[in-house]
Amino acid sequence: MKEIKPINILEKFSMFEKLWTPHIIGELNGQYVKLCKLKNDFVWHSHDNEDELFMVFKGTLLMDFRDGRTVEVKEGEILIVPKGVEHRPHTNGEIVLNLLFEPKTTAHTGNVDAEVTVKELGWI
Amino acid sequence: MKEIKPINILEKFSMFEKLWTPHIIGELNGQYVKLCKLKNDFVWHSHDNEDELFMVFKGTLLMDFRDGRTVEVKEGEILIVPKGVEHRPHTNGEIVLNLLFEPKTTAHTGNVDAEVTVKELGWI
Repeated sequence: MKEIKPINILEKFSMFEKLWTPHIIGELNGQYVKLCKLKNDFVWHSHDNEDELFMVFKGTLLMDFRDGRTVEVKEGEILIVPKGVEHRPHTNGEIVLNLLFEPKTTAHTGNVDAEVTVKELGWI
Repeated sequence: MKEIKPINILEKFSMFEKLWTPHIIGELNGQYVKLCKLKNDFVWHSHDNEDELFMVFKGTLLMDFRDGRTVEVKEGEILIVPKGVEHRPHTNGEIVLNLLFEPKTTAHTGNVDAEVTVKELGWI
């Protein structure tokens, strides 16, 4: 069992630079808590079996949907994208600090194998 | 399907006053995202089958464990308490704003049926 101790979210964000690469900071009930730094564009994708939670700690996350909507997710806000819903996260040139909460099985580019796809996520 | 729209966490906290009563703000993968206002003492309890995540948005959450340790969880910090581990959340007289992430099956007083136990949680 991992030691029960507090995890400081902003401290963890300062431990990596690589964009669009989720880093695991916690695990519970078959789910991971992950941090990701986002900037500019990402690929359209969906997750067949996993709902996905985005929580923004800095900046504004923009989430495109296939119906043409773009949802703004600001600091202190959560967005839950249900399984099967195609989405494309991006930012307006700024680096956005984003926390993810989703099943351990979730691939960050979902059903798409893109250049940015990371196969093995690491803990920080 | 619920509409996909941002959830502002501090706005949601402003929508209720009752202490030690979790309010549901989101649902994904069989888990709930809940908000709870904490002040002073709570009961010792554990959850047989559920790990529990605490994320503090204001104040300092104090978590007692049976080994005599008290862990401080400050604003911007997460604490994950594994299933089966007895714990007692409390605060030092201040109201603490706490977000919970845990399976829908989680009873907030765990294996204990206390005066503070809420049987039916509501959405805000």
